[in-house]
Amino acid sequence: MLLKINGQRLSDDLDALGKIGATSEGGLSRLAMSAADVEGRSWFRQRVQESGLIFRSDGAGNVSAVLPSARQVDAPTLLMGSHLDTVHNGGRFDGALGVLAGLEVLRTCRDAGLVLPFHLEAISFTDEEGSILPLMGSRAAAGILTLDELEHPRGGKDALEEGMKRLNITPETILNAKRENLHAYLELHIEQGAILEDSGFDIGIVTSMVGLRSYWLEFTGESAHAGTKPMPGRADALWGAAEFIRAARDLVMRDFAPGVMNVGQIFVGPGAFNIVPGHAKLALEFRHSTREYLDQMDSKLMPLAHEIANQFNLALEVEPVAWVEPAMMDEGLMQTLEAASKQHGLSHTRVFSFAGHDAQSLQTQIPTAMLFVPSVKGISHHPDEFTTPEAVMNGANVLLQTILNLSENHHV
Amino acid sequence: MLLKINGQRLSDDLDALGKIGATSEGGLSRLAMSAADVEGRSWFRQRVQESGLIFRSDGAGNVSAVLPSARQVDAPTLLMGSHLDTVHNGGRFDGALGVLAGLEVLRTCRDAGLVLPFHLEAISFTDEEGSILPLMGSRAAAGILTLDELEHPRGGKDALEEGMKRLNITPETILNAKRENLHAYLELHIEQGAILEDSGFDIGIVTSMVGLRSYWLEFTGESAHAGTKPMPGRADALWGAAEFIRAARDLVMRDFAPGVMNVGQIFVGPGAFNIVPGHAKLALEFRHSTREYLDQMDSKLMPLAHEIANQFNLALEVEPVAWVEPAMMDEGLMQTLEAASKQHGLSHTRVFSFAGHDAQSLQTQIPTAMLFVPSVKGISHHPDEFTTPEAVMNGANVLLQTILNLSENHHV
Repeated sequence: MLLKINGQRLSDDLDALGKIGATSEGGLSRLAMSAADVEGRSWFRQRVQESGLIFRSDGAGNVSAVLPSARQVDAPTLLMGSHLDTVHNGGRFDGALGVLAGLEVLRTCRDAGLVLPFHLEAISFTDEEGSILPLMGSRAAAGILTLDELEHPRGGKDALEEGMKRLNITPETILNAKRENLHAYLELHIEQGAILEDSGFDIGIVTSMVGLRSYWLEFTGESAHAGTKPMPGRADALWGAAEFIRAARDLVMRDFAPGVMNVGQIFVGPGAFNIVPGHAKLALEFRHSTREYLDQMDSKLMPLAHEIANQFNLALEVEPVAWVEPAMMDEGLMQTLEAASKQHGLSHTRVFSFAGHDAQSLQTQIPTAMLFVPSVKGISHHPDEFTTPEAVMNGANVLLQTILNLSENHHV
Repeated sequence: MLLKINGQRLSDDLDALGKIGATSEGGLSRLAMSAADVEGRSWFRQRVQESGLIFRSDGAGNVSAVLPSARQVDAPTLLMGSHLDTVHNGGRFDGALGVLAGLEVLRTCRDAGLVLPFHLEAISFTDEEGSILPLMGSRAAAGILTLDELEHPRGGKDALEEGMKRLNITPETILNAKRENLHAYLELHIEQGAILEDSGFDIGIVTSMVGLRSYWLEFTGESAHAGTKPMPGRADALWGAAEFIRAARDLVMRDFAPGVMNVGQIFVGPGAFNIVPGHAKLALEFRHSTREYLDQMDSKLMPLAHEIANQFNLALEVEPVAWVEPAMMDEGLMQTLEAASKQHGLSHTRVFSFAGHDAQSLQTQIPTAMLFVPSVKGISHHPDEFTTPEAVMNGANVLLQTILNLSENHHV
């Protein structure tokens, strides 16, 4: 007979937390370091303490529930977690599920009187969604957040300043929040997509968080009078840009799915109805699961852009913008998650995550794994985001079972 | 033996005028109503008076040389002309050729002691190039310039105010400058393109100044996260816009050449590397020689845009921006120009003008025709603009011969 979490208790927690920061559109706005976020943290602290667990907070504003190892005081910590913050008008499951399922796993272990070889901790990382500084809490905990990042927060320095005051933290405490003696990190999250739902799997085992590369591609031709310049003689930069958008899309869909590409912006000059465009500068981004795939995409897309530039008598300048390596999950942990799923009779498949998660910070330092449960219609970051109580239970039970399996295999 | 113009005298005039407003780049900046333009007008007045012709100016700042009919005082006027203004750093032939060739035709007729059944006038229209108000002089002479146009000049009210002072004209005199009792208008101009040079013809007989239509086409899809939204499910507005640019280009080049189309601007929203574009708004313009062709282009391009919108799951909004009717040249005058070319042993072909000219103002009121002579490499609006002395002579001789032919066929 397998140990199982208390689904009703977990559902009640999700419901209660889902009222904090509620919007008139039926969504949640619990932006990191906002008043609503502080309210969410207070509620969490209270739930932790009511549950008879230790409440912990650190210099980066991360908050957690801790079930200390009954076996040894200096045991390593096995972290589970995710985040309590949301995007503007987001949903009730993105982030909250991982934290509250972790809390429920702790309660279940404590109630069962288990003696574990590690401290068990359910953590909520600050600002995963990046309303001020993306992944701030998990990057600080992993020890990879830099002073430069703190000095140039996406949400602005004033917002960060105000947020730090609310959480009673400072740049110094944030940069000193690196965690030591961590055994592993496990994150349960809703899938932000519909692959599991469409394919009917109960559990997604994440192999990597996709990496991305982005470039400005600037095509340069010759601006000309759109009346007197015959079309066959033109060097229209927008013709090249448009052809690249089409060809790159077809290439990636044909040869690199489920990898993706996007042209999200384009600037055209001189930019008048009656002038043939001499310049077209486009913002290209592509994502895939491994460095090898990203290299292959690069080695196909860049020559394609040059070929199209030649074809349309254009010059091409390529300016790299961003280069984010894929975050690889731990193979041993993935297999442990798969074994746990099997023990609970749940079907599972390996998937990529096309979104970023706190796990990508932790995997730079310690063995890390993630599991997804289906999100109805793949909706996330939206009031309609929903995951069934059954899927919530499935995810939390696999998380619990994984802890139990790791506990058995743990040799200190 | 055919009467011919004095090629040297015409070349000398072109050289002399080509020094007024000269730029350090080797071009000419004789912007309408500028100090350089006033200097050009003074030179022209002096040349007219030295030639023993009547100098005339009107309330719109148009200036001309007149050779009165020796047959009758109340004869109609046969106008020849073009414009003395240039664009910024333009060339020596665009405009000047038509005015100075007209002057040379008058001198040749006067020297030959011809008795003509019409007053012969060589006119320079104010601001053909539109540095302040496009076609101001010719539109005023045709009686089609409106007070509203004068109140919203492209170059700004202050520039117009200052310019009017320089020319000693006012809105009232401009709006009262309509010409009466005009027999026809003939304009010699350099081709602003390379069709004549490429095909080896001496003379181009213009059939029409092309009309144009322009639209904003706004494709609307759904913005989405460029990582988590799988490519097959996207409604990427830029995909539709890019496909339209390609398909519209191919359609127009295949079915409507030498008609042309241009997408000169595109605005994408939200406009970030990592967001699938929900909006793409493009500036479409197309031009052709007749209203029928423009209707046909409309009836192909608009359904094409809607079809592509459907194909990419996008909505499409179409906003008309401009609608300029083609300016049709007079068939009888075209044939007279052709006959005159033949008499001089010059090869000729019918062409469209893809640029606007003063002739488009006059053709709304009186029989109008234009002839082109080749411009080397099709260059215009540039210091390198050049037309050979031979081509200059050819054009002026055809103009003269056309006057002679019209004189013979004229029944008062």
